[in-house]
Amino acid sequence: MSDFDFESLIVNIPDYPEPGVIFKDITPLLADPTGFNAVIDAIAEHFKDAGVTKVIGAEARGFMIGAPVAYRLGAGFIPARKPGKLPREVISEKYTLEYGTNELQIHADALSADDVVLLVDDLIATGGTVVAQVKLVQKVGAKLAGMGFLMELAFLHPREAVAQATDVEVFSLVKVG
Amino acid sequence: MSDFDFESLIVNIPDYPEPGVIFKDITPLLADPTGFNAVIDAIAEHFKDAGVTKVIGAEARGFMIGAPVAYRLGAGFIPARKPGKLPREVISEKYTLEYGTNELQIHADALSADDVVLLVDDLIATGGTVVAQVKLVQKVGAKLAGMGFLMELAFLHPREAVAQATDVEVFSLVKVG
Repeated sequence: MSDFDFESLIVNIPDYPEPGVIFKDITPLLADPTGFNAVIDAIAEHFKDAGVTKVIGAEARGFMIGAPVAYRLGAGFIPARKPGKLPREVISEKYTLEYGTNELQIHADALSADDVVLLVDDLIATGGTVVAQVKLVQKVGAKLAGMGFLMELAFLHPREAVAQATDVEVFSLVKVG
Repeated sequence: MSDFDFESLIVNIPDYPEPGVIFKDITPLLADPTGFNAVIDAIAEHFKDAGVTKVIGAEARGFMIGAPVAYRLGAGFIPARKPGKLPREVISEKYTLEYGTNELQIHADALSADDVVLLVDDLIATGGTVVAQVKLVQKVGAKLAGMGFLMELAFLHPREAVAQATDVEVFSLVKVG
């Protein structure tokens, strides 16, 4: 585990994007050469013996963490994108947000049953986004190695939501609440 | 320079997103462990002696290439985002597309005059997106190290557009047309 103080470079933005919410701005941490490298190394090293062949990152901040973790692990990178962004045949999963629903897609040929998949994102909050990705991995019969996050909003109980879909490990660098 | 055949894993999609356009789908290349690692290594190694402190990648595919290149160079990563995505004070640049205009933003404190910046994206087409990023770097007085792309649509003459804004090197792995 890294001894870098990740929280020191995460900025709290009160009442963003709406009143009562404290937004966690990770861009100062990503912009810091030492901090950014420590984030990627800490997630990648935790899963370095899991035989990961593919990392999935969700649009758009998930790309910033997931792609370098994939590179560091010698794996391929698969973007999970919002509808209308991928040009070929896709598989889709809808998930519910506080208001309304959202949907994530990957190309239908992006994974095979031989793949070992790590899910990486900047944030796990309610767990809805990552559970949708778990279901996409399960649809194609690939193996799930685990999931890694820079931040976990523990007060929203995401581990309970994840546990209903899979028993793989939830790993996070910074726990809030 | 890598001897990996990048083009063998880029899929041509005719008439996407509109008739007459051939979309270049790079997701099979990113999903291939050897191919993805070769892309990142080839761009990073080309600029490894340039003293790069920050890499900028543009939303959203630019994050998938720019972030791992930043990691590989030991630099920080800065996302250039569309309006409404960054929570603190920003600097902005508008640029023209075939129809209408677009705008890219970075946080106002993301760069300092001491930074040496590399611009990385999956694609340089007309050059409009990267010229907007050049102007953002110039606004804060940081030094530009160059720009690196997976693909260059040479038939759209992006180097002429770039040359009107800066004389730094344009480096691309795959030239089309």
